[in-house]
Formats: sequence, C-alpha cells, structure tokens
Amino acid sequence: MTTPRENLISWLRDAYAMEGQAISLLQAQIDRLDHYPEALPRLRQHLEETREQQATVEQCLNKLGADPSTLKEAAMKLGANMQGMMHAMASDEVLKHALGSHAFERFEAASYCALTAAAETADEPDIARTCERIMRQEEEMGRWVWEQLPQMTRKYMQRAETGAEAKR
Amino acid sequence: MTTPRENLISWLRDAYAMEGQAISLLQAQIDRLDHYPEALPRLRQHLEETREQQATVEQCLNKLGADPSTLKEAAMKLGANMQGMMHAMASDEVLKHALGSHAFERFEAASYCALTAAAETADEPDIARTCERIMRQEEEMGRWVWEQLPQMTRKYMQRAETGAEAKR
Repeated sequence: MTTPRENLISWLRDAYAMEGQAISLLQAQIDRLDHYPEALPRLRQHLEETREQQATVEQCLNKLGADPSTLKEAAMKLGANMQGMMHAMASDEVLKHALGSHAFERFEAASYCALTAAAETADEPDIARTCERIMRQEEEMGRWVWEQLPQMTRKYMQRAETGAEAKR
Repeated sequence: MTTPRENLISWLRDAYAMEGQAISLLQAQIDRLDHYPEALPRLRQHLEETREQQATVEQCLNKLGADPSTLKEAAMKLGANMQGMMHAMASDEVLKHALGSHAFERFEAASYCALTAAAETADEPDIARTCERIMRQEEEMGRWVWEQLPQMTRKYMQRAETGAEAKR
C-alpha cells in the first residue's frame, strides 16, 4: 500500500535526479557544440532554467517534509530509463544528439505532466501548479530543439558534402 | 566526404532499425499491460502502423538502390541512442513505461523530421513526403500517450492506495 503523498514524494525525487542529469547533459552539449554556435544562447538559457527547476523540485520536497538526505542518493541513482537518452546525447554526432535531446525534453515534460496529476491527487495544488509550470518550460525547450532539426540537418549535410567536420 | 544521398541512405537504415525496435517494444507492451486494457486498441493499431512504416522505409531504401543485405545488419545493431528509452519501456512500472513510450515516439517523430529535410536536400521529394507522413503518425501516437498520462497517474495512485497491484 502506497499513499498518494508517498508516490508524489518518490516521483519528485526521480524528477530531482532527472534534473541533475539534465544539467550534466546540457553542460556537455554546450562544451561540445563547435559548429552550431547559433544554438548556444538557448542552451545556456535552458541550463539556467534547469538549475532553477531542480531547486524548485527540492523546495516541493521540503514542503512535503521529505528527508533531504535521500536527495543525494536519488541524484546518484540514475534511472535506467534515462540511460538510453543519455547515450544519444553523449553521441558526438550532432544530429543524433539533437534527436536524443528532443526526446529527453519530452521525457521531462511527460514526467511533470504525470507529476501535476499526482500532486492534484495528493491534494497539493501549489505543487501541482509548480509542476505544470516546469512542464511548460520543458515543452518549450522540446519545441525549440524540434524547430532546429530541419536547418541543422541541411547544415550537417552541406558540411559533410564539402568534407568539413560536420559531426559536432 | 559524404554525399547527401549517402547520408540519406544511412539515416533511413537507422530508421529501419528503429522501427524494428519499436515493433518489439510495442509487442512487449501489449503482452504486459494487464491493468490498463483501455490502452490496448490504440497500441495494437500503432503496432500495425509501425510494421507498415518499416516496410515503407525499406521501399525507400530500395528506391535509392541501397543493398538490402545491409538492412538486417542495421536492424541488429541497436543504436546506443535507443537503449535508454528501451530501458524505460522494459520497466514493469506502467507509468515510467508511458513516459519512455512518449519520449520514444517523439524520438521517432524527430528522426523523420530530420529525414524529411535530408530527403529534400538529397533531391528525393517522394521520399521526403513519405517521411513527413510517417512523422505525423509518430507525432499522433506521441500525443495519444501524452493524453493518457493524467488519468493513468490517477488510476495508478488509486490502485496503489488500496494495495492493488498497480505497476502494470
């Protein structure tokens, strides 16, 4: 038997860990994106946003009286469900990376969509509103990555055709 | 140096392999979804759709004169970028599975979005139209999974609260 509150706490912990991963991935992406500097401002903005999201999730957990010492543990235990997208994003191939990045943002958005329903069910309307707000940010970032895909593909192919190093 | 046509062929092979994975995942999902039978009709429909998509991608590769013997190889070589989403979907936890499933559909949609641009760049407008059509199907499936999330979360929590087996 698990109460709605217990489920909500457990899933918020997962979200906290997920944001930790998102921070590492965005940082790696920013460090590596040599040939697509036009993407940097938005990536940096989302890195900042992601740090705020993680802090916000921590505040939600505090509000629910969750033991803060378990957070570090959650952040360490990378969900197996993340590892594939992680691989995509660790790829040094900029297009595969972008596909993985879009999927990752949608995974995050979907997590907050479920968390919004979970917080409502657990009778925590403030946390529900917070999760919905973060969901919108993840959706926006996912949409932005999506919108880059056609031009990024063309640019990649043009560079590849001239023999230029296109992969990053 | 890689020509647009070579890139297009290589990415269509990736898409063929991706659809092979999608078929396995959907089948596993259908076999396992004990407590959420309302999802079955749409999942079965998308399994059928996915089989057609894979056959369509194969036709595109034939049209481009790609060696069919390399297809089997592509299907075997599971892209590392897929493995994370695979893990999410192999999870026996129905909600995590749904999050992974949404992300996977969006990964597929993004792949076809890039493929559409790639086919245009390689001057293959018929293949571009085909990829765009498949992209819409993946987007629709992704949207459907997304729409299930709130009610699925509520149902999961209700079952968990009564001690019922909720995870599938």
